[in-house]
Amino acid sequence: MKPQFDLTLYLVTDPRLSEGDLPGKVEQAIRGGVTLVQLREKNTDSRKFLETTLQVREITDRYGIPLIINDRVDIALACDAAGVHLGQSDIPCTIARKILGPNKLIGVTAKTVEQAVQAEQDGADYLGCGALFPSGAKPEAQPMTLSTLSQILAAVDIPVTAIGGINADNLHLPVEAGVNGVAVVSAILGQPDVSAAARKLREKIEAANPSG
Amino acid sequence: MKPQFDLTLYLVTDPRLSEGDLPGKVEQAIRGGVTLVQLREKNTDSRKFLETTLQVREITDRYGIPLIINDRVDIALACDAAGVHLGQSDIPCTIARKILGPNKLIGVTAKTVEQAVQAEQDGADYLGCGALFPSGAKPEAQPMTLSTLSQILAAVDIPVTAIGGINADNLHLPVEAGVNGVAVVSAILGQPDVSAAARKLREKIEAANPSG
Repeated sequence: MKPQFDLTLYLVTDPRLSEGDLPGKVEQAIRGGVTLVQLREKNTDSRKFLETTLQVREITDRYGIPLIINDRVDIALACDAAGVHLGQSDIPCTIARKILGPNKLIGVTAKTVEQAVQAEQDGADYLGCGALFPSGAKPEAQPMTLSTLSQILAAVDIPVTAIGGINADNLHLPVEAGVNGVAVVSAILGQPDVSAAARKLREKIEAANPSG
Repeated sequence: MKPQFDLTLYLVTDPRLSEGDLPGKVEQAIRGGVTLVQLREKNTDSRKFLETTLQVREITDRYGIPLIINDRVDIALACDAAGVHLGQSDIPCTIARKILGPNKLIGVTAKTVEQAVQAEQDGADYLGCGALFPSGAKPEAQPMTLSTLSQILAAVDIPVTAIGGINADNLHLPVEAGVNGVAVVSAILGQPDVSAAARKLREKIEAANPSG
């Protein structure tokens, strides 16, 4: 059976912010209210990536939080993660689905309405849309307008999270637009008190939620 | 059923020598006598790696040559390659075997007798041993002595290829030591006439083979 997941507050790790005690930081973030965790590593040895993943999975398992692996379908299989998140430069969703089978989650990054509709057709379980605001984690990403985000929300039925430069001060914009949650990197991992940062974001999301 | 394979002349690609028409170069190399092809890409987008792999697989399929993917078990699954080659910093052999099942080839890099024996126990189908000589493709690799290579050959029953700086002038050394074949990068892909380079290596291997 496919794992249940809650996009409300999605923590995405960043190699530049993962130094030191990543499992400890992930635990603090979960205690603050993170509902989903995605491990993103680039240019790391596969074995090191797998070791990190297994350490983080101990934490996410303990709290019943699904762990998603960015890009690397093999790492997801090797650690029996809940699923993968695929960018537009990663393995296509249809091929990842064949490899992973029906019981793993697949998230896809969509920057346009066309990509969003295609991903839903290809069997994605959720979309990550952005970058919504200029982002420290991906400074090269072109910001997506709130208008495009709203068009995507109107065009697909699968859940949508917004990503890219989202923080406590601007998250009301995607939440009011109707996303199922927000995904953040530095707004949690770049803060001195990771747990407090996550808690504040959760409160702001709930305050901004039009249905809340 | 596991694909049959012949280690005699094993072409390993290198991102730095893969510019331009890689499928064309692989075809020329096969026509010159290459018996096995390993695709090695690092720091490449997964989708681009997969696209390259599918292009090369068209060639290797046409000639009945098994295609091995370096490191990336997911790319091997995505293109239904013959197998993977795993370095000591890649996913462990036992985990890769669980993901790939019994019908895919797994090669493992062994730099010591201990690693070689472990890889055989872990279910590797062949070993790549080296770097035997200083190598342009991996200048940081510590050369392995011919004595260590001989000890590995005595310690394991699975086939062994030598790798690292091997060319037409020095390949007699590992061949006389008893390897099942040699693996090369620049001795084929770095040469102006790829096909002629492969043909010359094949001739030298046959001339040096003590059982030939």
